[in-house]
Amino acid sequence: MLSVIVAGAMPRIGTAADLSAMALPPPKTEGGKPLMEALKARHSTREFADRQLAPQMLSNLLWAAWGINRPQSGLRTAPSSQACMDIDLYLAMANGVWIYNPKTHSISQLMPDDVRGETTTGQDYVKTAPLNLIYVSDAARMKNPSGPERALTGIADSAVIGQNVYLFCASEGLGAVLRASVPGAKLAQRLNLKPTQAIYFAQSVGYPKG
Amino acid sequence: MLSVIVAGAMPRIGTAADLSAMALPPPKTEGGKPLMEALKARHSTREFADRQLAPQMLSNLLWAAWGINRPQSGLRTAPSSQACMDIDLYLAMANGVWIYNPKTHSISQLMPDDVRGETTTGQDYVKTAPLNLIYVSDAARMKNPSGPERALTGIADSAVIGQNVYLFCASEGLGAVLRASVPGAKLAQRLNLKPTQAIYFAQSVGYPKG
Repeated sequence: MLSVIVAGAMPRIGTAADLSAMALPPPKTEGGKPLMEALKARHSTREFADRQLAPQMLSNLLWAAWGINRPQSGLRTAPSSQACMDIDLYLAMANGVWIYNPKTHSISQLMPDDVRGETTTGQDYVKTAPLNLIYVSDAARMKNPSGPERALTGIADSAVIGQNVYLFCASEGLGAVLRASVPGAKLAQRLNLKPTQAIYFAQSVGYPKG
Repeated sequence: MLSVIVAGAMPRIGTAADLSAMALPPPKTEGGKPLMEALKARHSTREFADRQLAPQMLSNLLWAAWGINRPQSGLRTAPSSQACMDIDLYLAMANGVWIYNPKTHSISQLMPDDVRGETTTGQDYVKTAPLNLIYVSDAARMKNPSGPERALTGIADSAVIGQNVYLFCASEGLGAVLRASVPGAKLAQRLNLKPTQAIYFAQSVGYPKG
């Protein structure tokens, strides 16, 4: 049986037939620092403490990053080009690789492997950061899936989510760094991505050291 | 004499010898909606009321977008690839095109022309939105100014600032839309940009209609 513990017990959902899905606590969609103070505190962190994110924190972070903020339309906290919603958030943690499902606000395990060290072209801090978000852009959802629009959409749609994560971390005393230093093609192969999927960015998240 | 009035009287700085510079009121870097509520309210707006942004609002918006949040280092509210700070924020308003100077928190007039309608490939609402931000990326500031890194840096570094603007607008009851529908090369020529400068995004901002 795969380990599905992120940082404490959480209820299981799903069946053995699908990916191992795990419900997250409902996100707290109120509170946080006043926006201007979150902006004042935003910065990049490249040293992380050996401390996991609690399930509620992970839940809030994922909602802030790319959650549904308008349930009727399914639209999100970040924009995407022509509302194509090309981005899937993959979570590389010590206990495996997970995919965020905004509709059910749950995460599903893709594989039990710890691939954190494979999300970087060399930075040591990445290997032990409790969470490395991997931004996976799927051209199959785009209206213009080829040419310069493909990359522009994937890059921009990753970056806006990355800024949500930065601000959430600034608000909650977490550290984060958005990284283009990702071995995109190699990591895509490792994650068994489809040819239409591409990785431009990853983002390390955790508590700052010290 | 060029008009330097945005929406009410503001003190002039600078001389006739340089660009016509205009001080902004100091930004209010506290307050705003709690972050999670700003994220809940984030959305794209494509219809704007015929109402200008007050100088204080413009000041706060520019600081939130791309202001200096760590005066000692000059670092900003948004990240940029390898801290190259390639982005200059140009403001297309009825009274001309202006450039934001984060170090002095002022704007300088580049030309008195109203080019708002030239920042779009066809959307009517752009022509009358009180503010169209133009994201100008300068490869001369990049460590890797050619190849795929050039576009990746310019696109991502624009998008993260664009998300700051979205959240500021959500916090303040303003509307915004980040647009890749920009005639980049033609607009670059119109603004007399250098060959190293490129435009990937613009963002219309104003009060929502109705």
